[in-house]
Amino acid sequence: MTCLLCSPTTESLLWHDVFCRVIWVSDDDYPGFCRVILNAHVREMTDLPPADRQRLMDVVFAVETAVREVAKPDKINLASLGNLVPHIHWHVIPRWTEDRCFPDAIWAPARREGWVPAGAGIGPLIEQRLRELLPA
Amino acid sequence: MTCLLCSPTTESLLWHDVFCRVIWVSDDDYPGFCRVILNAHVREMTDLPPADRQRLMDVVFAVETAVREVAKPDKINLASLGNLVPHIHWHVIPRWTEDRCFPDAIWAPARREGWVPAGAGIGPLIEQRLRELLPA
Repeated sequence: MTCLLCSPTTESLLWHDVFCRVIWVSDDDYPGFCRVILNAHVREMTDLPPADRQRLMDVVFAVETAVREVAKPDKINLASLGNLVPHIHWHVIPRWTEDRCFPDAIWAPARREGWVPAGAGIGPLIEQRLRELLPA
Repeated sequence: MTCLLCSPTTESLLWHDVFCRVIWVSDDDYPGFCRVILNAHVREMTDLPPADRQRLMDVVFAVETAVREVAKPDKINLASLGNLVPHIHWHVIPRWTEDRCFPDAIWAPARREGWVPAGAGIGPLIEQRLRELLPA
């Protein structure tokens, strides 16, 4: 079966190198939600050598920094699940106390509807900050 | 307000040092579910200096290794949410394709009930493996 992350069709790319890429999820409920995707098809973090684990986490933390600065959320959620697509990818999710599911995980049933933080133009701002934080 | 992770009442401790601790969650649906808890009260990973981020992730990955070896899950889920308790802690969750919520996150509504992987004595085995993987 073709892996969706090995053969992506549409991705809003914010940053990439030969090792991994950062995409903007463009989720209306969570503006600033980004994903860090390893380019190689690897299942678990501990299937990577330690230096590669660190290299990937450095990008995850750069994205966390950029999302915090640009989206100014109340909390950051980090998660690497991969149950549907067992190819390492990290969710970097900005959370607000008034958001759809807070304080539950975004995968829990909604607690409320209708509140959406300002998100216009947030993708390009994160992209610009990542360019400053990460090597070209 | 007292932080539950600064003043824990009952924790099933598997490993600890001055920097962080590993506890066994003892979740019947997910035997082998562990948490890595930073001892200091810090909100986000990027509030830590880079060396401390790496130190904590090294423990998270040691726990992932131990849980994979002992529980033999189909997938590992890693998550640092902290919406309820904004004190850095990492969930290391073994997943099975037949488990309660698979392939959804464990915070999603249950898809099925009744299937529980064998979990008797799994805590001590993880504890023993962590003692080999991590410095005393």
